Amino acid sequence: MNKTIQTVESAAAGSAFLIEDVYPLIDGGRFAVKRIAGDRVEVWADIYRDGDATISAALIWRGEQEREWRRESMIHHGDDRWSGAFVPTEPGPYVYAIEAWTDEFATWRHGVERKQLSGSDITLDAIEGAGLLTKAQGARQDAAAIILRQCEDYLGSGDVTPLLATELGEAMAESQARPDLTRSPSFPLVIERDRARFGAWYQMMPRSQSAVAGQHGTLRDCIARVPDIAAMGFDVLYFTPVHPIGKTRRKGRNNSPGASDGEPGSPYAIGAAEGGHDALHPELGTIEDFRALVATCLEYGLEIALDFAVQCSPDHPWLTQHPEWFKWRPDRSVRTADGPYSDIVIPDFASVDRVGLWNAFRDAMLFWIDHGVTIFAIDNHDTAPLPFWEWLIRDIRSRHPEVILFSKTFARPKLMRGLAKLGFAQSFSYFPWRTGKWELEQYLGELTRYPERDFVRPNLFVNTPDLLPYHLQSGEAWMFKSRFALAATLSGNCGLYSGFELLEHEAIPGHEEYQDSEKYQIRQRDWDRPGNIKAYITALNRIRHDNAALQQTTNLRFLGIEHGETIAFVKEATEPANIVVVAIALSRPVREVWLALGELTIDVGGERRRISALENLMTGEQSRIEWGGIRLRIDPDCDPALLFRCLA
Amino acid sequence: MNKTIQTVESAAAGSAFLIEDVYPLIDGGRFAVKRIAGDRVEVWADIYRDGDATISAALIWRGEQEREWRRESMIHHGDDRWSGAFVPTEPGPYVYAIEAWTDEFATWRHGVERKQLSGSDITLDAIEGAGLLTKAQGARQDAAAIILRQCEDYLGSGDVTPLLATELGEAMAESQARPDLTRSPSFPLVIERDRARFGAWYQMMPRSQSAVAGQHGTLRDCIARVPDIAAMGFDVLYFTPVHPIGKTRRKGRNNSPGASDGEPGSPYAIGAAEGGHDALHPELGTIEDFRALVATCLEYGLEIALDFAVQCSPDHPWLTQHPEWFKWRPDRSVRTADGPYSDIVIPDFASVDRVGLWNAFRDAMLFWIDHGVTIFAIDNHDTAPLPFWEWLIRDIRSRHPEVILFSKTFARPKLMRGLAKLGFAQSFSYFPWRTGKWELEQYLGELTRYPERDFVRPNLFVNTPDLLPYHLQSGEAWMFKSRFALAATLSGNCGLYSGFELLEHEAIPGHEEYQDSEKYQIRQRDWDRPGNIKAYITALNRIRHDNAALQQTTNLRFLGIEHGETIAFVKEATEPANIVVVAIALSRPVREVWLALGELTIDVGGERRRISALENLMTGEQSRIEWGGIRLRIDPDCDPALLFRCLA
Repeated sequence: MNKTIQTVESAAAGSAFLIEDVYPLIDGGRFAVKRIAGDRVEVWADIYRDGDATISAALIWRGEQEREWRRESMIHHGDDRWSGAFVPTEPGPYVYAIEAWTDEFATWRHGVERKQLSGSDITLDAIEGAGLLTKAQGARQDAAAIILRQCEDYLGSGDVTPLLATELGEAMAESQARPDLTRSPSFPLVIERDRARFGAWYQMMPRSQSAVAGQHGTLRDCIARVPDIAAMGFDVLYFTPVHPIGKTRRKGRNNSPGASDGEPGSPYAIGAAEGGHDALHPELGTIEDFRALVATCLEYGLEIALDFAVQCSPDHPWLTQHPEWFKWRPDRSVRTADGPYSDIVIPDFASVDRVGLWNAFRDAMLFWIDHGVTIFAIDNHDTAPLPFWEWLIRDIRSRHPEVILFSKTFARPKLMRGLAKLGFAQSFSYFPWRTGKWELEQYLGELTRYPERDFVRPNLFVNTPDLLPYHLQSGEAWMFKSRFALAATLSGNCGLYSGFELLEHEAIPGHEEYQDSEKYQIRQRDWDRPGNIKAYITALNRIRHDNAALQQTTNLRFLGIEHGETIAFVKEATEPANIVVVAIALSRPVREVWLALGELTIDVGGERRRISALENLMTGEQSRIEWGGIRLRIDPDCDPALLFRCLA
Repeated sequence: MNKTIQTVESAAAGSAFLIEDVYPLIDGGRFAVKRIAGDRVEVWADIYRDGDATISAALIWRGEQEREWRRESMIHHGDDRWSGAFVPTEPGPYVYAIEAWTDEFATWRHGVERKQLSGSDITLDAIEGAGLLTKAQGARQDAAAIILRQCEDYLGSGDVTPLLATELGEAMAESQARPDLTRSPSFPLVIERDRARFGAWYQMMPRSQSAVAGQHGTLRDCIARVPDIAAMGFDVLYFTPVHPIGKTRRKGRNNSPGASDGEPGSPYAIGAAEGGHDALHPELGTIEDFRALVATCLEYGLEIALDFAVQCSPDHPWLTQHPEWFKWRPDRSVRTADGPYSDIVIPDFASVDRVGLWNAFRDAMLFWIDHGVTIFAIDNHDTAPLPFWEWLIRDIRSRHPEVILFSKTFARPKLMRGLAKLGFAQSFSYFPWRTGKWELEQYLGELTRYPERDFVRPNLFVNTPDLLPYHLQSGEAWMFKSRFALAATLSGNCGLYSGFELLEHEAIPGHEEYQDSEKYQIRQRDWDRPGNIKAYITALNRIRHDNAALQQTTNLRFLGIEHGETIAFVKEATEPANIVVVAIALSRPVREVWLALGELTIDVGGERRRISALENLMTGEQSRIEWGGIRLRIDPDCDPALLFRCLA
């Protein structure tokens, strides 16, 4: 019997309302929604109870570690659908929730007004309304004064009118008790800085940056390259691993097993006698050089991103310091990775001392953060368990909310999505393998639809040290330009691996691997080699910086264009109002196409105006919109992409 | 530091896998999925971890109060999507969950087979594989024997072949330790008996059932009516409230305020000196009569459903016994409901003694269950808080899983959905206000789509004591038939309120209310009045009983038919295989229409065969399908509906 009594009480407590279909929300709140600092976070929900009482709702939010909730009123849009919004300005983890309660006084007022209309007697109702005023025990001074005054007016006159005053309703709305207040579960939200959503990345191997032929590049050589990279308009300078490289099982040219003397090995075979994940490869220079590099980058508006790979070379100091962190074979050799990666060892993340191992990786990351690194690209991370990444991201974020972790893996679709849910700020995508119009539309549609839009931020790389896509292997400039234009306009985040700007395209035949890959040897280039497309890249990066619409991804909307090898889309930003229309050729022939724009409008001083003209963002030329669209001529050999800013 | 250590361990524990996008699931498991005893409950989920290890998954389930989980293997369908199924045979609350773990031995075997293909040395791998056999510590005897034998074979021969045997793989799959086992949260499921999904309801007022003009009907009169109602093929005999009726504020004819002497009042004004919710109105008879009624119904295959309304008349004994359960006004009168319901009082569900009040309602329901009632229609229940219903349903269900609670309310769309989520087995719908083809298609589509299909079971009533829809007010037989045919074929559950079969259609002008409504007066009818459509109703109910496809709702699929006032659909059942095609006229003119059937196939002895002919379920006539469809002629004045059984 006692059990049943408790059940009634626990059933009744804080559950008078159903709060459902909350947007945004990922897997019922299991994972955090992602937003950018300064974004208006709009939250929608169905909120209702039985009957027709007047109800109120609030959106409450706070930093995860804060005690006090902040409150924003929610508005009813009909059909029991409510919304509210807040604007977190600092990066970090947050939570939000929804509260609903009955506004008893408003319900009373509504009933009395109805009775007045029907001419019923309201003497008793008036007494009851006055009685409700005594429930406003927590009223602030100004509200309390209003409540007292209106009550006295009523008692003096015996007339209900003072009780129906709007200002009394407002005072009561915020002052009366809320005995049936129902609060939804708390839902997680992660706020990151703008660079999580917008940036152009330039990836390079530091050891290839020497200006002297045949010489191992140093961080000082990298510093000398910074002005040129910054001049191209990049935001992030992204380095392959900078750690000591193992000698045991070191790979030679083109991944041949067993390096010859003097071959540098793959920088992904991390760790040697000189140190491991928190050490610098001696030939690159000193930690002071690293600090100098970070400082120079900052000066030029670049951030450093480092590859962060959990594998070790067989010479990594941890193998002798912490043998329990690794898997050993019956012949007492360490278990190495299979296939082409026989120069590396994957630690045992389920080790009896996993606490030690996980913390060691975390501490290595903290080491580089202490030395000015704010972005990490997590290499090949389907080799570590999912809970490790979730833990690492939470741990790093709680200490350094400004740090951005980029999930740099090509894996199965669900795993790619899952890693993004776990908290990575950005993700690799299948963009390198999406070349047809319908493939691009479908795939980008998939990444920008709900709920993916709330946790996946694709970073569209046109190539990587591991990937020279087939479509680039003929080395045609128009194709390199088309691919970079796609990456730079479809997504807020895009990147290339150095050599792309020089149209490098020699592959191992039949593979999407670079011939003489830099992963296994030092390669030096003439960065101003004739035929390079640096000016084109520079122009696109400038346009990205000038147009807020291109600084995000989820605002993508494809446009109808009656040409199977031309893709067109529009991106729209508010504050500042900016609309960019893009058309890009996916094949080489010259084409004339009609681009239907539909009913585009833009905010001009708070007023929506119809778009009347387009400004070509490369040439500055303006064209009037006629018949709801515009005729375009694209000559890919000149420029495969047309970018326009919309004018009112 | 200690905090961080704990965090690693808690992060690593039982979360190696992501188990996502579980189907079926309502609001992340907040509410129970509904199924029928004997149904195969199929569960789907995305299940994955990092890397390419071989994984296994199981669907586990149990009665909510059971301790031991039952286990079913899950199958991988590609793209990390898995499914499993189980068949609960008893009504009651259940839970299910998903477990995933790495099959370490299968992973090893997969790796060795790959190495064998590439010709690598596998000496060490073989030793490692043999080592894994020691992890099968919990092996059952037969598995242990296989493991031991294969291990000895390997040790004797030094050859890896015995370790790669399929039977060893199977023995290890079920025997080895599962250190990374991840279990999803437990998700609720409610199993109900078949009547929750399938039944035709006949609603009547017991006091109108006397054969003697002007005499108050009794339960004995109702017993006399049972054979006729059963002969029409109904499954549920549904009574308006049978309790004593209040005298204070009693309503007269057509809801006039203040009854004259001898007027019986509305049975919804529950409670008088003679008793309340657990008492029988004296004029209806005794509790022994009630038992006799239940027994007669059972004999004729009918179940009794009772209206269960939480309101009280001002004369209800609880007002004096438990004044704290009610709201009192400043003049010490009790607060009555507003508007047309001034003869009733809504208890205060937030009363200081809500435990007493809630339990009192629950006990009243238990009283009637003890007297043989197995179905309750919850009247007007948006007058009680949502947590009350959720608590009541859980409480009743835990004691009497066979009891069916029907949510008989017309409320706002979200509230209707919410009440269904809270656990009502069936719900009223907006069907009475959906008459056009597109309205019906859209609305039934909404009720049968995911996730609604998993918690909403509509019961399509063509009329109720409160509702004489406008489209019936002209009294045309074809319309009454069309509406009953729609209700009887679109949904597994349908119902009518007595008088419908006599084409009663006199409304209060401009309203959807019956003139001289039985709610306020006794009405007697000649149940065999000429022009009645009892034979038509009987035929449809017989067809429903003979065809499994018509005994459920979620199997509904609309068919294309090029006529704006003819609706067509197909319903398909398995076990037994049964496909029914339906076309119903929504207007009166005779029409000839082409019905495209597409590629319908049916299971015949385990083999899919194409449908070749249709059998008219009214006439028995067969028609061959030609050109993928059939030409139909519908004369609504003869029969607005055509029902066909598909033949292979």
